[in-house]
Amino acid sequence: MADRLLVLTAHPGDFVWRAAGAIALATSRGDRAVIGCMSFGERGESASLWRQGHTLDEIKAQRRAEAEKAASVLGAEIRFSDAGDYPLTETPGLTRELIDLYREVQPTVVLTHAAADPYNHDHATAHAIALRARVLAQAPGVEGPGEVIGAPPVFCFEPHQPEQCGFTPDVLLDITEVWDRKREAMQVLAAQKHLWNYYTELGARRGLQAARNSGPNLGLPSDTRAEAYQRVFPQVTRALS
Amino acid sequence: MADRLLVLTAHPGDFVWRAAGAIALATSRGDRAVIGCMSFGERGESASLWRQGHTLDEIKAQRRAEAEKAASVLGAEIRFSDAGDYPLTETPGLTRELIDLYREVQPTVVLTHAAADPYNHDHATAHAIALRARVLAQAPGVEGPGEVIGAPPVFCFEPHQPEQCGFTPDVLLDITEVWDRKREAMQVLAAQKHLWNYYTELGARRGLQAARNSGPNLGLPSDTRAEAYQRVFPQVTRALS
Amino acid sequence: MADRLLVLTAHPGDFVWRAAGAIALATSRGDRAVIGCMSFGERGESASLWRQGHTLDEIKAQRRAEAEKAASVLGAEIRFSDAGDYPLTETPGLTRELIDLYREVQPTVVLTHAAADPYNHDHATAHAIALRARVLAQAPGVEGPGEVIGAPPVFCFEPHQPEQCGFTPDVLLDITEVWDRKREAMQVLAAQKHLWNYYTELGARRGLQAARNSGPNLGLPSDTRAEAYQRVFPQVTRALS
Amino acid sequence: MADRLLVLTAHPGDFVWRAAGAIALATSRGDRAVIGCMSFGERGESASLWRQGHTLDEIKAQRRAEAEKAASVLGAEIRFSDAGDYPLTETPGLTRELIDLYREVQPTVVLTHAAADPYNHDHATAHAIALRARVLAQAPGVEGPGEVIGAPPVFCFEPHQPEQCGFTPDVLLDITEVWDRKREAMQVLAAQKHLWNYYTELGARRGLQAARNSGPNLGLPSDTRAEAYQRVFPQVTRALS
Amino acid sequence: MADRLLVLTAHPGDFVWRAAGAIALATSRGDRAVIGCMSFGERGESASLWRQGHTLDEIKAQRRAEAEKAASVLGAEIRFSDAGDYPLTETPGLTRELIDLYREVQPTVVLTHAAADPYNHDHATAHAIALRARVLAQAPGVEGPGEVIGAPPVFCFEPHQPEQCGFTPDVLLDITEVWDRKREAMQVLAAQKHLWNYYTELGARRGLQAARNSGPNLGLPSDTRAEAYQRVFPQVTRALS
Amino acid sequence: MADRLLVLTAHPGDFVWRAAGAIALATSRGDRAVIGCMSFGERGESASLWRQGHTLDEIKAQRRAEAEKAASVLGAEIRFSDAGDYPLTETPGLTRELIDLYREVQPTVVLTHAAADPYNHDHATAHAIALRARVLAQAPGVEGPGEVIGAPPVFCFEPHQPEQCGFTPDVLLDITEVWDRKREAMQVLAAQKHLWNYYTELGARRGLQAARNSGPNLGLPSDTRAEAYQRVFPQVTRALS
Repeated sequence: MADRLLVLTAHPGDFVWRAAGAIALATSRGDRAVIGCMSFGERGESASLWRQGHTLDEIKAQRRAEAEKAASVLGAEIRFSDAGDYPLTETPGLTRELIDLYREVQPTVVLTHAAADPYNHDHATAHAIALRARVLAQAPGVEGPGEVIGAPPVFCFEPHQPEQCGFTPDVLLDITEVWDRKREAMQVLAAQKHLWNYYTELGARRGLQAARNSGPNLGLPSDTRAEAYQRVFPQVTRALS
Repeated sequence: MADRLLVLTAHPGDFVWRAAGAIALATSRGDRAVIGCMSFGERGESASLWRQGHTLDEIKAQRRAEAEKAASVLGAEIRFSDAGDYPLTETPGLTRELIDLYREVQPTVVLTHAAADPYNHDHATAHAIALRARVLAQAPGVEGPGEVIGAPPVFCFEPHQPEQCGFTPDVLLDITEVWDRKREAMQVLAAQKHLWNYYTELGARRGLQAARNSGPNLGLPSDTRAEAYQRVFPQVTRALS
Repeated sequence: MADRLLVLTAHPGDFVWRAAGAIALATSRGDRAVIGCMSFGERGESASLWRQGHTLDEIKAQRRAEAEKAASVLGAEIRFSDAGDYPLTETPGLTRELIDLYREVQPTVVLTHAAADPYNHDHATAHAIALRARVLAQAPGVEGPGEVIGAPPVFCFEPHQPEQCGFTPDVLLDITEVWDRKREAMQVLAAQKHLWNYYTELGARRGLQAARNSGPNLGLPSDTRAEAYQRVFPQVTRALS
Repeated sequence: MADRLLVLTAHPGDFVWRAAGAIALATSRGDRAVIGCMSFGERGESASLWRQGHTLDEIKAQRRAEAEKAASVLGAEIRFSDAGDYPLTETPGLTRELIDLYREVQPTVVLTHAAADPYNHDHATAHAIALRARVLAQAPGVEGPGEVIGAPPVFCFEPHQPEQCGFTPDVLLDITEVWDRKREAMQVLAAQKHLWNYYTELGARRGLQAARNSGPNLGLPSDTRAEAYQRVFPQVTRALS
Repeated sequence: MADRLLVLTAHPGDFVWRAAGAIALATSRGDRAVIGCMSFGERGESASLWRQGHTLDEIKAQRRAEAEKAASVLGAEIRFSDAGDYPLTETPGLTRELIDLYREVQPTVVLTHAAADPYNHDHATAHAIALRARVLAQAPGVEGPGEVIGAPPVFCFEPHQPEQCGFTPDVLLDITEVWDRKREAMQVLAAQKHLWNYYTELGARRGLQAARNSGPNLGLPSDTRAEAYQRVFPQVTRALS
Repeated sequence: MADRLLVLTAHPGDFVWRAAGAIALATSRGDRAVIGCMSFGERGESASLWRQGHTLDEIKAQRRAEAEKAASVLGAEIRFSDAGDYPLTETPGLTRELIDLYREVQPTVVLTHAAADPYNHDHATAHAIALRARVLAQAPGVEGPGEVIGAPPVFCFEPHQPEQCGFTPDVLLDITEVWDRKREAMQVLAAQKHLWNYYTELGARRGLQAARNSGPNLGLPSDTRAEAYQRVFPQVTRALS
């Protein structure tokens, strides 16, 4: 039976740069992937649009369109909470929406931001909200539509300046086979062209590390492409590898 | 093709209490498992034998016999370095022996002690030696018989008082299907009967945690038996789960 | 002069599983013990009652009755803030109530949750509220009934999955002499029968660790029962031991 | 029955600046206190004597005389291993000596250096040796005169630049009643007069912290004198305070 | 061109005890220094005034007058947000005020509290608000008067009990040449006379550490006066020293 | 007066990939730079030469020649201890050599490896030796030629897989103006051509981070080239920036 991947982010660009490989891997295997965007990144991650004189509504519309197109390239669904950014704030309404989303999707794997980011506090807020809503969605006493969820593993994707965010990669995900899809999704974000190369290089560097840590069994080649993740909960497995 | 599991410990009892589940899982799948014991635990872990007045040679012989029997229950080979314990000391000779063992076995997975143990410094020493010999065995410039090895993942098994050893479980291994085999191996260590229940209870507690962290896919039941491990290097994988 | 123990928890079950030994020890010495429960655990820790179709009010009444009975077994008073759970939220009203409680009880020792718990965020919230209210209760400028308090030491009791909560035991409390009282209090919580054994085993395991760390002076036997705690502030003492 | 305090240091000055209060408290209560000095601090802590042109033997004699006098002021015995300093090195002979000392003294409390000190690596080495010899002295299989010891608690005393050594005080020991004795012992070290005030001030500052953390029961005044310690093992106790 | 120093604190006393040296150094070089005080410390740091029976308004007026005088001694401007203390709370209004202040001052260096303080939670709150407002002030999409700011480095000043606040000094600032100015500013705070000596001694101790770490180039003497700081972001430089 | 930079490494390649920018910056300002190579990297970092069938002596000669050439490109002197690698071992002889080197060079800044590297234990060993020899070289009681040294700051350069080595960059050094020199030095290491791009990309990425953290004063452009370092001791300064 197919898995369900739920990706919870603060802003629309996040899933593209940091998790597009994991999303494309999932959908290429026939899994369902749903992205929950808490805001449109309208204030904090749209500097060039503001400088061009666009209105708030125009900016939100443009960020939404872009994100929908990138999600579509990756074969994923996308939802927007429009909770506002810079600052993104934890409210009962947003939490409610995420609980409902968890229960609708019944995720088998969850991706979200790392716990801290001194360069963008919305990321840490999104992490906290995503983690808290996950636990609330497990409780029969928390009312709402749908069934309670199990306890899906949570992976934090890589922040922009990982060492300053306390991010230590403990999972390197080989995304070589869907690399072209990630590249295509990045190219949808035309205003941030300078990041295409940045994240292409990051994919190669994490890939080289994956190769160096891959052991005799996987034996990945040195031109592997990878994304780095950090687990929130211990891995549960039936075989060490 | 079958995997090769290499287990490097300071004393003979260690692989039974802490890693017998992983060993039995491997051999039950047809993998090769080799245990490298750096000492016979003759001074540090044989208190009752010393109190009974046995000689050093008698104690070493008895510990060897016991360990061989336990290894045999688990379907594993066992080698002894007789490097002395309490204290176990890093010497060029012991390192040499371990390099050769790595190259002979060509492990796909390595198990050893955690990096620190203030209750038994031999454990930390064994960890350091095992890690260093692994890197040396990778280098063509380090001479000796056999081929250089790849970069097998290393898992630290659980120390007796984990919180004081900086041990945080990041892998919970479901060993339910080989639990009887682990129980049988523990019972070989007749002099430490009080530990049978201790480690049976630990298997149940780690199993309950495995169940609680297992997610909708694995969906482990609450009577799972598990062993806890901590990775030294990041996991490399082709799918998040 | 008798001591005053103040125990601040998120939910009614917490003081039974995690701190009943400390409470019973205190009351058995003639100290006053007061438990402040911030909620009835009505949403997050009453899954079976919800599944049985009870109303919110019924569940709160039942959790209250149970907690009052368990407190009574331990010789302790209990107060409920009814601040709601899942999520428990920090509000000026709840903080006000706790400041007043601190000033009424004038505690010499405070117990509460650990600072983090990714499996139950109410626990972390309760920790934060308890710590903040303690500092506010020390200030003459924060108005309200009663006298300002001193600076009582704070001990965090053990979370359910300690390693994932950053909990490292730094105090092991010998509760052997009141073990029967703790067992009796646990048995009041009839719906969670599966936890009786879990916490009985935990008491034995922490007891064994207490024995191993107890030194020549205390010289605790290996069948000791203990509870683990973590200090928030440094210990102040007139003798090292 | 009286306690036995064992203080293991790298150099002769260490016990005076860092632990004289704990030693004087012990002996003032009728306990036995034994100081084991691994070296005479002849190379690393005798800069002014070298600059005056003294020979190695003269320096060792002078440091010994001074340390014996300071120990005598504190009512403590002192032993010297003469193992050499700068660098102090772990050797089987030194370890042997310390095992014998542990077994002779049968300490109920052990004091030694913190685990790290980037300004003086002898301190870290002495910590490691003291901790390892303690475990070896517990084992019947490690031969030598005397009886095996129990598991005495170990406290690390405060290094000169604590924050750079990873030292976080978790015990503040009230030494007010023996402060004059500590002052007198410090004054024996005439060549390091500049440190008298430094450690007098430190005693007052740690004392103020002790007062601020002392809770309603102890209720220490703000002119308390204290020494800071960090535990290696968890505290075992019959009452929280 | 002159630098702009922005100091963001919870209460009026903070900038005097913890950062007066940095402020006086800046103004003595001709830089602009602006202090933003989030509250008057009217509830949490005015115990003696409350005990004397003053009203809230009187206390706020007195704390303001004192702070203005101390700022004037240091050559700095000061602003008050009057957001209330004990507890200081993050509100959109306070954040708005700080964003505007950042944009007005265009700081080249920012000073604020450390990230944690279990003895005074207002300090941690002020740290969080200051850090978050700094990032918001960088975004063109966050509206308001003035220009967006760059990314000024942030330094946390030293809390009262540093080790319990996770504060590790990574910058020691030589303030010898403005020490008299700091002393004079401290003396403005007449009600806290007991702290004059405390912080004088701290200045000497941090100064001694500065001397010991100063290397052959700076070569600071042992009677240096210093303040300790901890960076939030990595240092960027054109020369290692 | 000119500074003296001392770079202490395990193997000949280390100073090129990790610190060539700092070295070239120093020499371009007229400072002296001396590289102390503890081994020729003959066993651990010469895999391709071994595979080509060269003898040990040939390999050492070739590594020496290459390193001398690269040092010359950077305007630096280079010394070799020939202490052997894989494993590099701490011996009194090697320590002696480094003490003498410290005293000869009288460094104002020291560069060496990070404290840990699970992929190459020689790096951690070299770090430990370099740090210990530095302290020994400060003591008049440690005999040998030359004058004792002061306390130069120590910077750890970036390991190959920084996150697995506990390496958090706390200094970003702008090396843009000497980038060509670093590139030229890398090209001397012809056998490791695959690393040229790797470290070119790293220089750009660290440069981008330098730009993002550089503040309004430095205001570095986004095409900056940088190297990352981690301090062992606190920075001592006369101005915050």
